[in-house]
Amino acid sequence: MVDGAIDADREGRDVADPTVPGFWAVVPAGGAGTRLWPLSRSSSPKFLHDLTGHGRTLLEQTHDRLAPLVEDRFLVVTGRVHADAVRAQLPDLAADAVLAEPTPRDSMAAIGLAAAVLERRADETGEDIVMGSFAADHVITDPSAFHRTVVEAVAAAREDWLVTIGIQPTFPSSAFGYVRQGEALAGHERARVVAAFVEKPSVSVAEDYLATGEYRWNAGMFVVRPRVLLELLATESPAFAACLREIAADPDRLDHLWPTLPKIAIDHAVAEPAASAGRVATVPGSFGWDDVGDFDSLAAMLGDEGKITVLGDDDLVLSQQSTGLVVPAAGRVIAVIGLDDVIVVDTPDGLLVASRERAQEVKAIVAELKDQGRTELT
Amino acid sequence: MVDGAIDADREGRDVADPTVPGFWAVVPAGGAGTRLWPLSRSSSPKFLHDLTGHGRTLLEQTHDRLAPLVEDRFLVVTGRVHADAVRAQLPDLAADAVLAEPTPRDSMAAIGLAAAVLERRADETGEDIVMGSFAADHVITDPSAFHRTVVEAVAAAREDWLVTIGIQPTFPSSAFGYVRQGEALAGHERARVVAAFVEKPSVSVAEDYLATGEYRWNAGMFVVRPRVLLELLATESPAFAACLREIAADPDRLDHLWPTLPKIAIDHAVAEPAASAGRVATVPGSFGWDDVGDFDSLAAMLGDEGKITVLGDDDLVLSQQSTGLVVPAAGRVIAVIGLDDVIVVDTPDGLLVASRERAQEVKAIVAELKDQGRTELT
Repeated sequence: MVDGAIDADREGRDVADPTVPGFWAVVPAGGAGTRLWPLSRSSSPKFLHDLTGHGRTLLEQTHDRLAPLVEDRFLVVTGRVHADAVRAQLPDLAADAVLAEPTPRDSMAAIGLAAAVLERRADETGEDIVMGSFAADHVITDPSAFHRTVVEAVAAAREDWLVTIGIQPTFPSSAFGYVRQGEALAGHERARVVAAFVEKPSVSVAEDYLATGEYRWNAGMFVVRPRVLLELLATESPAFAACLREIAADPDRLDHLWPTLPKIAIDHAVAEPAASAGRVATVPGSFGWDDVGDFDSLAAMLGDEGKITVLGDDDLVLSQQSTGLVVPAAGRVIAVIGLDDVIVVDTPDGLLVASRERAQEVKAIVAELKDQGRTELT
Repeated sequence: MVDGAIDADREGRDVADPTVPGFWAVVPAGGAGTRLWPLSRSSSPKFLHDLTGHGRTLLEQTHDRLAPLVEDRFLVVTGRVHADAVRAQLPDLAADAVLAEPTPRDSMAAIGLAAAVLERRADETGEDIVMGSFAADHVITDPSAFHRTVVEAVAAAREDWLVTIGIQPTFPSSAFGYVRQGEALAGHERARVVAAFVEKPSVSVAEDYLATGEYRWNAGMFVVRPRVLLELLATESPAFAACLREIAADPDRLDHLWPTLPKIAIDHAVAEPAASAGRVATVPGSFGWDDVGDFDSLAAMLGDEGKITVLGDDDLVLSQQSTGLVVPAAGRVIAVIGLDDVIVVDTPDGLLVASRERAQEVKAIVAELKDQGRTELT
C-alpha cells in the first residue's frame, strides 16, 4: 500500500516534487512490543517485523513513507543492540544516520538527542531544519494524506510552534491519549492551537470527546525546529537539555552522560507543559493510523470479519468454522477448528493461542517468563 | 495407574497367582487414529503414543495390563510398517510374537490370523488355548477389575462360548455399539447370553438403552477358543477361515493370500451372526474404559474441569483464564489466554488448535492434507 501511494505522488496527484527542503525525519525505534509476543521480543522488537503482510517491516515501511519527503535526511534512534538490524533493513542509510542509545531511556532522551544533533547541524550548515518524529512501529494506510499533513505541520513549525499531528479518531478508544483542539492558527489551512493533551480516557469519556468533534488521537508525531524543542525542554529541565547538547557536541561523552538522563516520555517532558503555555499547534491527520498495540488490533487491521486471516504463507493454514488471525511464522502446518476470534501465533520457540478479547494479556505471560529467568524467550 | 494395580495383584488382594493357564493375549495394533492428528499419524499411530501422561504408550500399557495374566503368551498383530516400532516398545516379546500384516485388512483378518496360529499351536502342543483379543489403543483404569472380568470370560470360553466383555456405560454414548444382555449363563457368576449386538445408536436411543439396565458397551474385546472363532467364521465364510488356516500352516503364503481376504470387522463377520445363533456370552466389565476416539474424549479422560490440563511437560505451558487440553509435544513454550474448552496439540511439523466440541473434525483436515498430496503430514 505504501508503494501504491508513492506512485500516486510520482504521478503528481497534488505534489509535483514532494520533498520538503530542510525537513528531517527522526524515527525513534524502541520498545519491545511485548504485547505482540512471541513474534516481537526484546531481542527482535515489533518494528523489525512485517506485520502487514506486504513484505516490508514496519521500520522499512516507515522509511518508505518518509523518504519522498526527506530523501536522505533521516535519523533513526535505536538501542545499541538493534543498530545492526536497523542498518541491515535500511542499507542505504548514511553511517551517521543511526543514533545508538546505550540503554533505553524513553522517548524524550531519544528524540531530544536527535534534536541536539540536528540543532548543531543547523548551526554548522545554516540549514533551516525542521524535524518530524515518527515512531518506527506504526502503520499508516494513506501516505499521500500523510504527506499533505506533514507539509502543513512543517509550515507551522517554521513559526516556532511545536506541532503535533492529531489523528481523526475512528472509535472511542481508551488506549490512546487525546489532543483537544483550540482556535485556528491564522494563515494556515487546517492547523489549530492545542488547548490541552489529555491522558487515556475511559471509553465513555472518549465517547463524549468524539461527540464534541474537538478531540483527536495523540499519535506521538511531533514536528518542530530542533532548537524550539530543546528550549521547551530547557524550560522544564535545563540540565536535561544541556546534557543532550553536550552529547551532540562530543559524542564520546555519550556512554558517560546517557545513564544520567531522566526516563520520561516526550509528552510529559515537553508537550503537555508547552500546551499549557500555548506553544503547541496541531494539524489534523485524516490518514488511517494504527499503533498495532496488540494482536487484537492487528487482527482488526488485517482481518476480514467472518474468516481466518493469515499473516504469512496461506498454504500453511487449514481451518474449519473459525475466525481470527493466524501467523504461521515457524513454517509448520496449522489446523484451526471451531474457534471464533482466535489468535494463533506460531514461532520456532514459542506459540501463542489466545482469544482476541484477551490478546493483550500476553504481557503477563512475558512477565512470567522473565520471572522464571527464561529471558531467551522474551 | 497400571503399575499400582499390578502391585495390588502382587500383594495378593484377590489373586494370589493371577496367571491364567492356556490363556493367550491377542493384541490387534492397527488404525491410524486420524482424529488424534497431529499426534497420531499413519506413520505413527495412536497405540505408539503415551496418551495418559504416565510415561508408557497405549501399547505398552496394554502389555503391562495383560502380562500378569498371560506371562509371555502374547501376540501382536500389526502392520508390517509398524512391526519394528512394536518390537522396540515391547523388547521382551519373542521373535514370533509379532504377526506382521502386509496391508491393513480390518479386524477379522487380523484376529482371525492370530486364531489360526493359536489353533495350530494348540493342536501341536495339546494346550487348551483360549485367546482374548484386546485393542492396543484403549485405556483401562482398573486393571484388577479387568483381570477378574477376563478370568470369568475365559471360564465361559472354555464352554465354547464366544465371550465379549460388556463395558458398564457411564453415559449415553452415540459413539459406541451396544450389547443387549439376555439370560444368565448357568454355573457362572456374572456371565449372560448376548441377546443381540446393536449398532451405534442416537443419544436418545442410547438413553433408552441405559434406562433398561440391559445394555453394555461393545468394546470389541472377545475371549474365545481359537477353533470356536474359526468355526463361527467358517459358518459365514468358509473360504475366509480356510485361507487363514492356510497362512498359519505355511507362513510363506502370507503375501500371496493376504490381499484376497475380505476387509471386514470381526463384529460383522462373526459376533453378530453368532449372537443370532445364540453362541455369544458376555461378562460385565466394571472397570473404566475409553477408546480415546478424539481429543475431546482425551480431554474428558485426563482433564480437571475449570483448568488447563497438560499432557507432557507442564513447564512448557503458561495459561491465563483458559480451560482445555494442551499437548506440548514439540518442546516449545505455549501460552494460552482467554479460551475455554480449547485443544492445542503442538508437534514439530503440525499444530492443531481446536474447540473440544469440534475436535473430531480434525479428520477433515487430515483428508484435506491427503488430497493436497502432503502425505508426510498425515
